[in-house]
Amino acid sequence: MAALNEFSLIKTYFNQAAPEGYLGVGDDCAVFAVRPGYQLAVSTDTLIEGRHFFSDTDPFQLGHKALAVNLSDLAAMGAQPKGCVLALAVPAIDDAWLQSFSAGFYALANQAQCPLIGGDTTRSSTDIMFTVTVFGEVPITQALRRDLARVDDDIWLTGTLGAPDLALQYLAGQMPLDADRLSASRPLLEKPQPPFAFAPHLLGHAHAGIDISDGLLQDLSHILQASHCGAQLQWSQLPVHSSLLGLEQQQQLQSVLAGGDVFQLCFTAPKSERSYLLELAALHSVQLTRIGTITQATGLEVLDAQQHPLPLPAHLGFDHFTL
Amino acid sequence: MAALNEFSLIKTYFNQAAPEGYLGVGDDCAVFAVRPGYQLAVSTDTLIEGRHFFSDTDPFQLGHKALAVNLSDLAAMGAQPKGCVLALAVPAIDDAWLQSFSAGFYALANQAQCPLIGGDTTRSSTDIMFTVTVFGEVPITQALRRDLARVDDDIWLTGTLGAPDLALQYLAGQMPLDADRLSASRPLLEKPQPPFAFAPHLLGHAHAGIDISDGLLQDLSHILQASHCGAQLQWSQLPVHSSLLGLEQQQQLQSVLAGGDVFQLCFTAPKSERSYLLELAALHSVQLTRIGTITQATGLEVLDAQQHPLPLPAHLGFDHFTL
Repeated sequence: MAALNEFSLIKTYFNQAAPEGYLGVGDDCAVFAVRPGYQLAVSTDTLIEGRHFFSDTDPFQLGHKALAVNLSDLAAMGAQPKGCVLALAVPAIDDAWLQSFSAGFYALANQAQCPLIGGDTTRSSTDIMFTVTVFGEVPITQALRRDLARVDDDIWLTGTLGAPDLALQYLAGQMPLDADRLSASRPLLEKPQPPFAFAPHLLGHAHAGIDISDGLLQDLSHILQASHCGAQLQWSQLPVHSSLLGLEQQQQLQSVLAGGDVFQLCFTAPKSERSYLLELAALHSVQLTRIGTITQATGLEVLDAQQHPLPLPAHLGFDHFTL
Repeated sequence: MAALNEFSLIKTYFNQAAPEGYLGVGDDCAVFAVRPGYQLAVSTDTLIEGRHFFSDTDPFQLGHKALAVNLSDLAAMGAQPKGCVLALAVPAIDDAWLQSFSAGFYALANQAQCPLIGGDTTRSSTDIMFTVTVFGEVPITQALRRDLARVDDDIWLTGTLGAPDLALQYLAGQMPLDADRLSASRPLLEKPQPPFAFAPHLLGHAHAGIDISDGLLQDLSHILQASHCGAQLQWSQLPVHSSLLGLEQQQQLQSVLAGGDVFQLCFTAPKSERSYLLELAALHSVQLTRIGTITQATGLEVLDAQQHPLPLPAHLGFDHFTL
């Protein structure tokens, strides 16, 4: 533990200058402008050691993930990243850990053009924890929302499903270790890549959107409830991550349909937008898959190749209190 | 512990509707507009059980304080409250505690017209902790900043000094209990009243501002360093809280000059603004005291009645890591 106090901690590790037009770290508030015609979108998420990440997680990846889970929420609204603040609580000052954590955080902040403009550091009693609040801009009244899905919309998904949950099960000792599957799936758990550059281009083309943090079925259900409709998904079309191939179907169903920590985007759009969306995805190197259809009948079904509903996992997704 | 999950927790305790023009709790992001000609001011602060508050603190007052410490940062910029998000981590769901905490939070949010528009709830391993991020509006380029104090400015302070630190010492058992002094000082520790309605009217009249969270000397020093100047304070003019009267001078010096958790506003303004400021304070029922002068010579002195510098406390203020 180094002889640092709170002020030198901030100056040492979180000292990258804010861009022009921002009043950043070092005053009581960060201050910045929102472009005329745009609204501000805000999201906040806390990650706690032992609950959201293992104590031995590589701090560079943790710094990345702290911001990534919030960028995922911005993407779910189609908002463009604008800036963020970080509240960090650590039980002691560990130079190497802080150096690596801040480097991971800044690397993604720079990539996403989402400068760190303020924060708070404090000492916790035992666990490392951090809350990131992120700000984005979205054109007035155009945000993707949960309540705007329409009957016959296509349902789309970026990225793949299942890998974060599989990695989590190996790391938690809930499954016999398979080193190859773990090394293939672990990066998706520890370094999620939400489609923050792709998502703002969905405005005016997509209807409803949500990010997959608690599991596909649970998160999609939020759209269905808010939009008063249902959905049919095609199991054969779901983008199952390659690390799950060959596992028993029961395991696949659980990880793909109910596995959390995905931080990819699920959205609905009219059929007329198919070619636009596929071109957009190619332009941004985003894997994009059409996984089902919004239905008038409420409820959520996952159909097998014979169009029969599959039995759904007992646990529909992650809940921060009941698990 | 009730059988609630994360979603019903939010629906049960944090369910007040957002005002018109806000997209609030229940989507991936909160969304709101910033008025043309205004910038957004943002601040974030974490409070942790056992570090920032005692485990048996009345949860209503804790809900108040969670927001108050952030409103204090907005006041320090002269920003008008606009909205806030709350990230709450609790080890278990305690109905009565959550009911009271949320009531205290909403009471101040309503009073300050600072609606709760989003958040995150999660389970912590042992301690209760929460991070509030608050948003305010401030006219472009007019924010009070730390680096704008000018030589010969008056130094002003809202409220009183010393009571929160005195209460903290009694509650922590660092001083023999004096029940009368504790009951007089404790409300200022547990229910701080930052001048959030008064502060926006300082714009165009005051130069530099900061809120007193870590102690007058330490926080004022941030203004002096950023503005490259010094200050002389008059001990006899400092608004010492009545609960400290009659204590030894050494104790008073420590609590008044170095005591934290005050959440009142220290700002500088030209002498020509004296009558405006006193009228403004009267209009808002804010206690306002002129406590000293900004000097060209750097350094910070507190002068006694004979204009001799007083010996300053050994600990200049609260630091979240070195204490």
